[in-house]
Amino acid sequence: MSTPAHSYILTVVCPDAVGIVAAVAGYLTDQQYFIEESSHFGDPDTGTFFMRTRFTPTTDGFSRAAFAAGFAPIAARFGIDWQVHDTRIQPRVLVMVSKYDHCLNDLLYRYRTGALRMAVPAVVSNHLDLAGLAEWHRIPYFHVPVTPQAKAAAEARLLEIVEDTRADLIVLARYMQILSPEFCARYPGRIMNIHHSFLPGFKGAKPYHEAHRRGVKLIGATAHYVTADLDEGPIIEQMVERADHSMSPEDLAAIGRDVESITLARAVKLHLERRVFVNGLKTVVLR
Amino acid sequence: MSTPAHSYILTVVCPDAVGIVAAVAGYLTDQQYFIEESSHFGDPDTGTFFMRTRFTPTTDGFSRAAFAAGFAPIAARFGIDWQVHDTRIQPRVLVMVSKYDHCLNDLLYRYRTGALRMAVPAVVSNHLDLAGLAEWHRIPYFHVPVTPQAKAAAEARLLEIVEDTRADLIVLARYMQILSPEFCARYPGRIMNIHHSFLPGFKGAKPYHEAHRRGVKLIGATAHYVTADLDEGPIIEQMVERADHSMSPEDLAAIGRDVESITLARAVKLHLERRVFVNGLKTVVLR
Amino acid sequence: MSTPAHSYILTVVCPDAVGIVAAVAGYLTDQQYFIEESSHFGDPDTGTFFMRTRFTPTTDGFSRAAFAAGFAPIAARFGIDWQVHDTRIQPRVLVMVSKYDHCLNDLLYRYRTGALRMAVPAVVSNHLDLAGLAEWHRIPYFHVPVTPQAKAAAEARLLEIVEDTRADLIVLARYMQILSPEFCARYPGRIMNIHHSFLPGFKGAKPYHEAHRRGVKLIGATAHYVTADLDEGPIIEQMVERADHSMSPEDLAAIGRDVESITLARAVKLHLERRVFVNGLKTVVLR
Amino acid sequence: MSTPAHSYILTVVCPDAVGIVAAVAGYLTDQQYFIEESSHFGDPDTGTFFMRTRFTPTTDGFSRAAFAAGFAPIAARFGIDWQVHDTRIQPRVLVMVSKYDHCLNDLLYRYRTGALRMAVPAVVSNHLDLAGLAEWHRIPYFHVPVTPQAKAAAEARLLEIVEDTRADLIVLARYMQILSPEFCARYPGRIMNIHHSFLPGFKGAKPYHEAHRRGVKLIGATAHYVTADLDEGPIIEQMVERADHSMSPEDLAAIGRDVESITLARAVKLHLERRVFVNGLKTVVLR
Repeated sequence: MSTPAHSYILTVVCPDAVGIVAAVAGYLTDQQYFIEESSHFGDPDTGTFFMRTRFTPTTDGFSRAAFAAGFAPIAARFGIDWQVHDTRIQPRVLVMVSKYDHCLNDLLYRYRTGALRMAVPAVVSNHLDLAGLAEWHRIPYFHVPVTPQAKAAAEARLLEIVEDTRADLIVLARYMQILSPEFCARYPGRIMNIHHSFLPGFKGAKPYHEAHRRGVKLIGATAHYVTADLDEGPIIEQMVERADHSMSPEDLAAIGRDVESITLARAVKLHLERRVFVNGLKTVVLR
Repeated sequence: MSTPAHSYILTVVCPDAVGIVAAVAGYLTDQQYFIEESSHFGDPDTGTFFMRTRFTPTTDGFSRAAFAAGFAPIAARFGIDWQVHDTRIQPRVLVMVSKYDHCLNDLLYRYRTGALRMAVPAVVSNHLDLAGLAEWHRIPYFHVPVTPQAKAAAEARLLEIVEDTRADLIVLARYMQILSPEFCARYPGRIMNIHHSFLPGFKGAKPYHEAHRRGVKLIGATAHYVTADLDEGPIIEQMVERADHSMSPEDLAAIGRDVESITLARAVKLHLERRVFVNGLKTVVLR
Repeated sequence: MSTPAHSYILTVVCPDAVGIVAAVAGYLTDQQYFIEESSHFGDPDTGTFFMRTRFTPTTDGFSRAAFAAGFAPIAARFGIDWQVHDTRIQPRVLVMVSKYDHCLNDLLYRYRTGALRMAVPAVVSNHLDLAGLAEWHRIPYFHVPVTPQAKAAAEARLLEIVEDTRADLIVLARYMQILSPEFCARYPGRIMNIHHSFLPGFKGAKPYHEAHRRGVKLIGATAHYVTADLDEGPIIEQMVERADHSMSPEDLAAIGRDVESITLARAVKLHLERRVFVNGLKTVVLR
Repeated sequence: MSTPAHSYILTVVCPDAVGIVAAVAGYLTDQQYFIEESSHFGDPDTGTFFMRTRFTPTTDGFSRAAFAAGFAPIAARFGIDWQVHDTRIQPRVLVMVSKYDHCLNDLLYRYRTGALRMAVPAVVSNHLDLAGLAEWHRIPYFHVPVTPQAKAAAEARLLEIVEDTRADLIVLARYMQILSPEFCARYPGRIMNIHHSFLPGFKGAKPYHEAHRRGVKLIGATAHYVTADLDEGPIIEQMVERADHSMSPEDLAAIGRDVESITLARAVKLHLERRVFVNGLKTVVLR
């Protein structure tokens, strides 16, 4: 699970066929690249093949251009959509929050200690409450208020910040506003949300109140990519915790905060390590 | 958790008020009954108080009639709906199945070894497939076919069997037929079902197919009391197990069988130990 | 689970006998105290009875002195060791750390947000590394270096701090020094440690290395009270997380940090809510 | 996870080197074998490489001899110890028991329903108690009594049965006798035991009594390969379940039975699917 500094991650998506693993592994070996990890999955329902390989060059002088040139014939033969990532370059993660701070606190702790290997170029919020937490971590805090009348303007401002910070991933860490379908569509597989229920149960607002009303014996959290279809995006990770009859909605929310934080942290980690692939309405997570 | 042979369980339900615990505990003590376990819960939403006490007489000669006579003034004062159960008398549990045998196998194993302290006067099924399993455990097997045309007749026969066997509890251990609202209403809090999803997600038929389609990362099972409102009865117990993208609906069902069996067994055990109280649409489970 | 501001917690420990629950509940009721929660346990091995009750006066003017005077005859009759706590008064928790900050970060987050209802009068460390974290939470940070030659002096200083801050509980949140038997004996049931293994497996230093060497498939954490007998004190809470062959000791430690933090937070919460009773080498945890 | 009837599993163990994955995948592809699943692990501590691939020939007429001839140069180049298994041929699993039947009941249920794809040529026991259970599943039951004076004779008889039934795997499903070092050494990685504790905690006899004495908050079970060093063999799978102060050793044992059964069933399934590799004192489990 540890990622040495000089390894690279290759991701491959293409129609499933005989020979992909052999071709990819063969190419890496020909280049004297040592395969540290490799996993793949062919989805029988969609006929799509997904592969993730982490490799380390055994000689100096890896160049993306040279890699691409050499890999081009294989990519062409199988119709591969591929990417190669230098693990020393940390993805840039923009975090969006409202007033709840448990997910932000957890993400920034893991950022600060290197448990999540990412850069955080900005925290964006429609409120001022969490500015102090961001500032203590020396992260710029952008206050972008959202009002019913000025929703479009707020989103335009958000767009600027995303572009200015060149964010690779936008994490909605209990951001309580709904993004427009246009915004969601602009960043497919690049906006992640934590929903405070075990989806598909209790979609929408106030899931802990709904869980209390229904009397469930477990509560959960779901990290998923955001699509225009609210709470229906591809699920990345889910976790649950025990609940019982004695717990009020506030008690459920208190327990839920731990589950939300850990579920989101795990999903972000999987994403940063390039393990998550969108596969229609679902994800493939290669461990 | 162990239940010595000569203890009794008292259950109490009444409007919440000051003094109930003291009155009940005081009466038990006055009678020289040793309180082995006791727990209670006052629901602030409904104002209802629930209590379960297991006690052992320290002198010989417990009589239900004498208990009732002595307890009557307290019951009257607080408006208590109460029951007292001799733990040596095992509840009679009728098990209903169709073709899947994993829950039946598990229940009968626990019955045979005494892990579930119950009598099983009959297994009822709309198919013949599981007769051998019941017979090996020396339990009568009633075949009650259900056809769209003769649904009422089948239910009438089922009613006879329930009455003839004096069943205290009816367990639907993957029984694939829907009982009529009239039948459900006749036995409130006495029919238990195992649903193969984490309710309220994936109600209805084929939940593993739905779980596969939605790409959830955990699958679950829910044991609940049956009401006329399908899959909406009060939840008793829920459990989950991890799933991933590589699993087909059949794989999910295979994993789900273990979760279903254990969830149902736990719910039955809680019910047998008189720990489960129906509280509107929910349950109170006193441990 | 929620604790209204004006409730009180009564804890009772005495030899087991018939009539304790009735006597205690009767007294509370006579005083017009509403019993919010109550649980108890009689240990058949030691013959000791433990009880915890949370109650709310229904009239104004609770006085500890009046309570004590009224309760004295009952306490005398059963030989009860009892305490009553005003839930509005937050226990004072001294946190001790070395260089690892994950448990401290977690505890201070829960302190700051009120998830753990406690005061933190000081953080004490044998290193300077975590001063910034304490200061951001406006908590005094005492640097008490420990050297082999000056261990006694360091402990004398620690003793002063404990007394000056009137700490009710000392939490060793990955404090990497061993306290003297005299110090441990001075605060029985008032020093809590988080050990980074599933005790009794992997006692002592470097448990993650030992877990890696042995190839276990789960790693764990144990929160326990500290006694002179290292890693043998009464266990309060334990949790585990999955591990596999691919994980280095460092990977195990990284996963372990989450488990340690949550296990310790749960144990501290149980202690703060007066739910944990030392029972010889073990604990009774009344929920 | 599902295994179509006509796929084959190739396992590879050799010193780690650049090019193994490429060579193996290349060979399979050259033969027009479709790779269904593939995973591998290079242990940095021992320098050993482990690989498991499940593949399906896309043309008729797979022959082990032809496979071996073609694969020989690759095996020679990398020093590969390899095996190829036809998934239609079910491994032969001999189950050994004493008086406890929960693991046997669980294994035979999974055998009967095909959840565990294995043949069970015999159940062997030093007692007569479980003969009925085996017979109901139409499995021969061998009674091999073990007395202190005639231990060698009993083991000689056991050896005959193992050889006569051509058992691939011997599962000690709560078999309460210790096998001799010679017997253990004869079947390395082919004898599996379920130990009723979370190893390395509570080795030896009566772990539930030890767990009760120590007051642990979780109890566990460990499936491991048997070596001459009792309870020290390579661990395959471990699971835990919550416990509390109210549970007697018998209560812990009752809860433990479920954990033992599931842990053993999972370990047997992993073994049957050729996912478990012995790696010194540990296992590599390729999922």
